[in-house]
Amino acid sequence: MIEIDRERLWRDIETLAGFTRPDTPWTRRAFSPEYDTARRWLKAAFVEAGLAVELDAAANIIGRRAGSEPGLPPLVTGSHTDTVPAGGRFDGIAGVLASLAFARALEASGTTLRHPLEVIDFLSEEPSDFGVSSIGSRAFAGKLSAEQLAMTDPSGETLAAAIARVGGAPAALAEPLRRMGDTAAYVELHIEQGRVLERAALPIGVVDHIVGIRRLSLVVTGRADHAGATPMDARFDALAGAAKVITAVETLANAMNGKPHYVVATVGKISVSPNAANAVAGRVEMILDLRAGSNDVLTDFPELLMTRCDLGALGFEIAPISTAPVTDCAPEVMAAIAAAADRLGLGHRTLTSGAGHDAVNAAFTGPTGMIFIPCREGRSHVPEEWSTPEQLYDGARVLAETLLALDQSL
Amino acid sequence: MIEIDRERLWRDIETLAGFTRPDTPWTRRAFSPEYDTARRWLKAAFVEAGLAVELDAAANIIGRRAGSEPGLPPLVTGSHTDTVPAGGRFDGIAGVLASLAFARALEASGTTLRHPLEVIDFLSEEPSDFGVSSIGSRAFAGKLSAEQLAMTDPSGETLAAAIARVGGAPAALAEPLRRMGDTAAYVELHIEQGRVLERAALPIGVVDHIVGIRRLSLVVTGRADHAGATPMDARFDALAGAAKVITAVETLANAMNGKPHYVVATVGKISVSPNAANAVAGRVEMILDLRAGSNDVLTDFPELLMTRCDLGALGFEIAPISTAPVTDCAPEVMAAIAAAADRLGLGHRTLTSGAGHDAVNAAFTGPTGMIFIPCREGRSHVPEEWSTPEQLYDGARVLAETLLALDQSL
Repeated sequence: MIEIDRERLWRDIETLAGFTRPDTPWTRRAFSPEYDTARRWLKAAFVEAGLAVELDAAANIIGRRAGSEPGLPPLVTGSHTDTVPAGGRFDGIAGVLASLAFARALEASGTTLRHPLEVIDFLSEEPSDFGVSSIGSRAFAGKLSAEQLAMTDPSGETLAAAIARVGGAPAALAEPLRRMGDTAAYVELHIEQGRVLERAALPIGVVDHIVGIRRLSLVVTGRADHAGATPMDARFDALAGAAKVITAVETLANAMNGKPHYVVATVGKISVSPNAANAVAGRVEMILDLRAGSNDVLTDFPELLMTRCDLGALGFEIAPISTAPVTDCAPEVMAAIAAAADRLGLGHRTLTSGAGHDAVNAAFTGPTGMIFIPCREGRSHVPEEWSTPEQLYDGARVLAETLLALDQSL
Repeated sequence: MIEIDRERLWRDIETLAGFTRPDTPWTRRAFSPEYDTARRWLKAAFVEAGLAVELDAAANIIGRRAGSEPGLPPLVTGSHTDTVPAGGRFDGIAGVLASLAFARALEASGTTLRHPLEVIDFLSEEPSDFGVSSIGSRAFAGKLSAEQLAMTDPSGETLAAAIARVGGAPAALAEPLRRMGDTAAYVELHIEQGRVLERAALPIGVVDHIVGIRRLSLVVTGRADHAGATPMDARFDALAGAAKVITAVETLANAMNGKPHYVVATVGKISVSPNAANAVAGRVEMILDLRAGSNDVLTDFPELLMTRCDLGALGFEIAPISTAPVTDCAPEVMAAIAAAADRLGLGHRTLTSGAGHDAVNAAFTGPTGMIFIPCREGRSHVPEEWSTPEQLYDGARVLAETLLALDQSL
C-alpha cells in the first residue's frame, strides 16, 4: 500500500510556486533565472525521492526509478514548471509535483514497479518568447522543427541556443527523442482551467480528447467613410458586418457543440481600421479560435460559417492560420483513471480538454491520458488560479492509483 | 451683373492648398507655420479684392466691404483654411475662396451692397491638438469657455496662448464677439463630404439641418475566460454581446432614418479586453456616434437601443459623453439658395449635413444656411478629396446669387 503525503505535496506547491518574479507573481518564465532556480530545487527533490535525474537533449528533466522487469518501456508522468506572465500557482506544477509525490511514496514504501517510472518536467510548455509552445514535449516526440529551433526571442537569442544554455543538446533534436512504443503509458494530472468539474461538484475529470485547435483569420472589408455624412443606405460598414460574423460564430458553435463532440469557437481578438469614433469602419480583422474534439468539426466549421454569413456587398474572407489536430486519449488509460477514482470513492466524469498540454506530444510515444482536478471558478493563467489541498490530494491519489494499475495491466 | 472668375477661383484653390506640409499632403494644421503662411497670402488676397482686413479677438480673419445703407448688420460668408492631418484640398478653403471670389466680383464690377459684406476665415475649425474644434467660430458666438482656453496641446501651450500668438486677444473672449442679430445672414459653401449629391447627379445641396451629434459610451461586461476550457454555455462573452449591440445600432438607425429626419448611428471605435485570440472577451468598450436632424431622436435613441438589446447575464451600460444639438438652417436662407440655383439652371435638393461646420456657431448670430457641392465618391479628410472646377464654380455662383438676393430681401 502506497500513501501520498498530502501535507508534503501542498508544501511542495507553495515552495515551487514561490520561485517567481517578486514584482509579478506568479511568473516563472522558461529560460529565466527563476525557472533555473526552480528546476535546481526540483532536481534535488527528485533525487531525494530516489529518482535518478538526467536532462534529455531537449532539457526536459527526467527523474527515473528502475522497474523490476527488464525490457519494459517506462510509465511516464509529469507536466511542466514554467508559467505565463502573471500566471497562477497550479498550472503545470500540480502535475509535476503530484507525480513526484507518487515517486516519493514508492520510495517510502520500498515499492518497485514492473515498469520503470519516469517523472518528467517538460521544458517550456507555455507560449514562449520564441513564439513556440510545448518546446520540451515537442522535441520529445520529434516535433520541434529546425525552423522553430532557429526562432529568436526579443533579445535575439535563438531557441536552439536557449535550449543549449539550460543544458540541452539542440543538435540532437532532428530525431525524435522517443518514438511510438517507447512509452508504456503517459498520464498527466492538470488543473481543468474551466468550470465543468466545479459546476458538477466532481473532484476528478477523465479527459477523453484534447481538442484540436484551428486558428483562422476572418477579414471583413467595407469602406471607411465619414460617420456623419454617409447615410445608412450608402454604407459599407465593416464593423457592422463583423458583428454579424461574431454572432454567426457563436450560433454555429452552440448548434454543433455536444453532437456529440465538444465544440467551442471564439472571436476574442479584433482589429478595426480606422477605429475612430467618427468613421465608419473600413476593415475588420479578427481571429477565430476554433476547438473541437473532432477533426471533422475543425474542417467543416469554416465552410458552414461562410454559408451562414450574408454580408451583402461587404468582402468576407476566411483564411487558415494554423491547425493542431485532435488528440484522442487511450481508452485503456481512461478506463484505468475512472476505475482508480471509483476505488477511491471519488466522483468523476469524462470531459474534453479545451487547452493544449504536453500530453498532446506524449501521445506520439504511447497510450496517453489526463486527469483533471477542479480549479476555483475555472480561473487559470491569472494570479487568482486556485485549487484546494483536498482537490490536489484527490487528484494525486487517482494518479498514483492509475499508474499502479497500469503497471500491472500493461 | 457680377461675374465669378472661374479660372481665378480654381487657381486660388491650387495656391492655398499648396501651403501644406511637404511630407504629408494635404496638411495645414491650425497654428502651424504652413497655416501662418497661408493666412498671410489670404490677407493679401482679401486686400487685393478691396476688402478691409482685420483680425478679431479670436484671430478670425475678417475681410469687410462697406454697404450703402447705414446701420445694417453685415452679410457674412466664409469657412476655414485649416485641415486635418493628411486631409484634402477643398474642405474649408472651397468656402473661403468662393466667398473671396464673390467679393472680388463685387469689386471688379463696382457693386455696392446694401449690407456690409464680411468674408471670414474662421480660426481652426478641424479637431485641433488642443482637443477643441471650431475654435474661431465658437469664440465668435461666445461659446469658447475658459476651460477650453486653458486646454493645452502636446507641447504644453495653452489654447489662449496659441490664439494670442496668431494675433488674437484671448482675454476678450469671455463675451461673445457677435450676438444674435449682429449678422444679417450667414451663408457657407462647403463640399458635401458624402455621396448624396453625386449619386443624385445634382450640383447643389441646400442644407436643412446640421445634425446634432451625441456621443455615448457603450460598455458590455462579461467575464474573461479561457477560449478552450470554457464551454459555450458557461460563457459571458462580452464581444459576442457587443456584436448584438452593434447590429441593434444599425437596425435601429435604419428604422428611424427618414421618418422624417436624417439619422445615422455608427459604432466605429471598439476596445476589447483582453483582446487575445485564446481568451473569451471580458469587457468591450465602444463609442456610439449618433447624428440626427432632430434633437428628439438624439434623446430617444439610447433608450430604444437599451430596450432592443437583450444581452442576458452580460452587463450593458450606455453613458453620455457629449451632446451638440441640431442646428436648423433658416427657411429664408434655404429658400434664397434654392431660388438662386433655379435662376442659374442648376439642379438642387435639400439634405442634412452629417458633419459639423462653422455655420453651427454662426447660427447663434443670425439666420444661417449652407450650400453643399459634390465631392468625388464622398471622400473627405483624405488626400483623394476632390471636386471639379465646374462643381466649385457652380457652387460659387449660387453663393454669389444667394448673397445678392439676401442683400435685397433682408
